[in-house]
Amino acid sequence: MTYCVGLLLDAGIVLLSDTRTNAGLDNISTYRKMFTFEEPGERVIAILTAGSLSVTQTVLARLTEAAEDPDASETTSILKAPSMLRVAQMIGSTLSDVTAEISGRMNRMSQSASASLIVAGQRKGGPMRLFLIYKEGNFIEATRDTPYLQIGEHKYGKPILDRVVTPETSLMDAQKAVLLSMDSTLRSNLSVGMPLDLCVIECDGLKVSQRRRIEPEDPQFSKMSKAWSEALRRAYTEIEI
Amino acid sequence: MTYCVGLLLDAGIVLLSDTRTNAGLDNISTYRKMFTFEEPGERVIAILTAGSLSVTQTVLARLTEAAEDPDASETTSILKAPSMLRVAQMIGSTLSDVTAEISGRMNRMSQSASASLIVAGQRKGGPMRLFLIYKEGNFIEATRDTPYLQIGEHKYGKPILDRVVTPETSLMDAQKAVLLSMDSTLRSNLSVGMPLDLCVIECDGLKVSQRRRIEPEDPQFSKMSKAWSEALRRAYTEIEI
Repeated sequence: MTYCVGLLLDAGIVLLSDTRTNAGLDNISTYRKMFTFEEPGERVIAILTAGSLSVTQTVLARLTEAAEDPDASETTSILKAPSMLRVAQMIGSTLSDVTAEISGRMNRMSQSASASLIVAGQRKGGPMRLFLIYKEGNFIEATRDTPYLQIGEHKYGKPILDRVVTPETSLMDAQKAVLLSMDSTLRSNLSVGMPLDLCVIECDGLKVSQRRRIEPEDPQFSKMSKAWSEALRRAYTEIEI
Repeated sequence: MTYCVGLLLDAGIVLLSDTRTNAGLDNISTYRKMFTFEEPGERVIAILTAGSLSVTQTVLARLTEAAEDPDASETTSILKAPSMLRVAQMIGSTLSDVTAEISGRMNRMSQSASASLIVAGQRKGGPMRLFLIYKEGNFIEATRDTPYLQIGEHKYGKPILDRVVTPETSLMDAQKAVLLSMDSTLRSNLSVGMPLDLCVIECDGLKVSQRRRIEPEDPQFSKMSKAWSEALRRAYTEIEI
């Protein structure tokens, strides 16, 4: 399993992903699930992945290869596509192709493979956008009504987002919200695990403004997690029924 | 969907269930999912249901019929079974039979039906016990390490239980915990809905000590729900990262 979350705020985009990958409970590894593509001042794109590693790695490899191709064009490279919408379409179509190819082979063994992605970013002159790309390649977009998107194990971490995130939330508060959302998920689902990757993209910055890997023993995260537990217990004690 | 939760505490048993039943999003009804069987001073049994209504209603009808049969015996009636373990086995076996019968018919139309149950209670001279009965009829039991069991949509309401419930929790605090657990679930899953049924069985009381239906406009529940939201937001604001 996986938990990735993205927030689209007036001040920018905040993204968080875990790194746990497992093929059965007895085969656990750490793989990065957050990937960024930048041309500072021109465009910034972040991709978060959930699902079958064979699918997500192939998708990323193809997108990277296409972007590095000297003959790359507007229709083949996410670094040249004229808008974030085109970027989402291009990634969706790559995901759909890869899933179909791999599933063709898997089906012969009565198995299947699929993946979903969060794609976020901004192109110079355009708005910031945040998409969730389904395994079939179609996608939805975050709006002011629901300014966040999640992939993977989304349930445990949803209540806190519903309660505190609005488009006006500051980038600092937004980091707190996604970290607390991840904290609830880490506690309840063993297949979501540290370290975490956090990324902040400020509005109109057209680059990754902040990138942080949070290791299991990170003192700041541990302190926050402990303070949240205590605050919840205190709130529970004080509530009257 | 459904959300039912049961806590097994030193002081007693606390149970809570919702009442929403749906066959598709466009066909929503209210059905009680909590059923009690009492012989005050001798035994008390509560059953909470999740899953296909045709299965759970048939199971309850058979258990009731068997208990009311003038020839009821230790092996046929949950009101005569010599222990709570036997009660759980009897209910598990009824559930397994009913599921097999209904599934046989459903399979011909490539459909399936299943249900799971929480069974709680005490027999005079025996300990209080709390079981979760799977659709196949086998079951697990709450222990001091994990003194609660959930069926249905369990994820949203699990974090609060993990954080605050221990065997030493008082019956009053336990009611607060299950109501807050339900509150988180109601917010996030439309297929879990009010009114709620709450039941408290005090240790060695051998009867239902308290039974309460909480309607959608219940002022006490609304107040608690609002206070919890505010407390969470305040806690979130105060946490430093």
